[in-house]
Amino acid sequence: MPRYALKIEYDGTPFAGWQRQAQGQASVQGAVEAALAKLEPGQHTIAAAGRTDAGVHATGQVATCDLARDWDAFRLSEALNFHLKPAPVSILRAVRVADDFHARFSAMERRYTFRLVQRRAPVTHDRGRVWQVLNPLDADAMREGATFLTGLHDFTTFRSSMCQAASPVKTLDEIRLEECDYPGGQEIRFHLRARSFLHNQVRSIVGTLERVGAGSWAPEAVKQALEARDRAACGPVCPPQGLYLTGVGYPDDPFAA
Amino acid sequence: MPRYALKIEYDGTPFAGWQRQAQGQASVQGAVEAALAKLEPGQHTIAAAGRTDAGVHATGQVATCDLARDWDAFRLSEALNFHLKPAPVSILRAVRVADDFHARFSAMERRYTFRLVQRRAPVTHDRGRVWQVLNPLDADAMREGATFLTGLHDFTTFRSSMCQAASPVKTLDEIRLEECDYPGGQEIRFHLRARSFLHNQVRSIVGTLERVGAGSWAPEAVKQALEARDRAACGPVCPPQGLYLTGVGYPDDPFAA
Repeated sequence: MPRYALKIEYDGTPFAGWQRQAQGQASVQGAVEAALAKLEPGQHTIAAAGRTDAGVHATGQVATCDLARDWDAFRLSEALNFHLKPAPVSILRAVRVADDFHARFSAMERRYTFRLVQRRAPVTHDRGRVWQVLNPLDADAMREGATFLTGLHDFTTFRSSMCQAASPVKTLDEIRLEECDYPGGQEIRFHLRARSFLHNQVRSIVGTLERVGAGSWAPEAVKQALEARDRAACGPVCPPQGLYLTGVGYPDDPFAA
Repeated sequence: MPRYALKIEYDGTPFAGWQRQAQGQASVQGAVEAALAKLEPGQHTIAAAGRTDAGVHATGQVATCDLARDWDAFRLSEALNFHLKPAPVSILRAVRVADDFHARFSAMERRYTFRLVQRRAPVTHDRGRVWQVLNPLDADAMREGATFLTGLHDFTTFRSSMCQAASPVKTLDEIRLEECDYPGGQEIRFHLRARSFLHNQVRSIVGTLERVGAGSWAPEAVKQALEARDRAACGPVCPPQGLYLTGVGYPDDPFAA
């Protein structure tokens, strides 16, 4: 069966997350599989690079599917987008890939962005798409706190107690903070890059760094929290709605051409 | 009565426009006036710098209101935001102004931004917040077309037949096109600046320039359309959801401090 890789964008707001739910709650995986079933009847099971939580968004999720027919890749993306309406899920690209390409297991890198907005007045345009805090933030202090987290570490402090990864030891390749103009306030975007992330790792890190930005934690306290290797040492886990899966890296990027 | 200037942000999607409606449809003016009535009972009538149409957004609308009590400006903004919930309308700042300051008549400049996204896959995060077209766009051709529109002109071609302005002669101080990255496509932001705009002027201009970007019109055709001084010579008027009132200029900016 021909295999296709799909680059997918979605607004996570109405979904219980990426993963198909037993109890019929809406999921992004379920929406894409239902669209595939309109093209080729039957049960489809697609695999994704990142199983995002409820409320988490994507601009560059990657999933693979196997189809019976030999579809023209562009026509496949157009047909899926037609059947996905009105769900806020969009196929940005479809490409034919080799049978041994796997969206999850072939991935060498995941990239996430977290949008944090600081201002008093409630956000309007970005409701559900950013995490808003009221207190002013010191971006330089957050940057200093972030430096303790890059590299190879035991991230036990920064992973959910529900995390199913075999090991808490991971390499975080980058945390870059970008300061953006925001009407009446300030936006900080956290760009994180790693081969893979633990469950809730990004939200645990951003929630902790926000405490540093607010002045409640010294930047060095992030180092102590990391070294504690204890979930209880983590700062508050921030809400999901500021988080975006922005891209996935592969040894041979199927979307490069 | 003490007078206050409010800087207002809103998502125009659920509203029939800025202006209060006789038939009880939701309006931004109505929402702000209802919040004011929670603070000081009675009928309030506020004046705004720009009376935006249905579906048009703002990040920097300015309105003035007169209140009986001498409010601390920060407390006023907080109290209004409390009462505005859950409407997507937010008071970014409130400031005390002189009695002769008027949001509309004191304004020397209005600034609008129009967000145009070109890609095949339907937008998800920005649904209702951008105008999406499917065809590729030539930004340089649009820029060339735009050059014919800046300066003092009779803009009869580019105004709604419903426009109530006394004269179609206006000075358009600037049209600047900004190309932005957009996942799977391209975004072009049009930044326009003038003392005042005619009804539907921005949407008439952007709709016409889109035709230039698509290759249907030569850039010089914009000049011919302008010189025709004929509404029928205009390109298609584009939809409202990409339009944002981003700021208003005053001789002595009340929000400067």
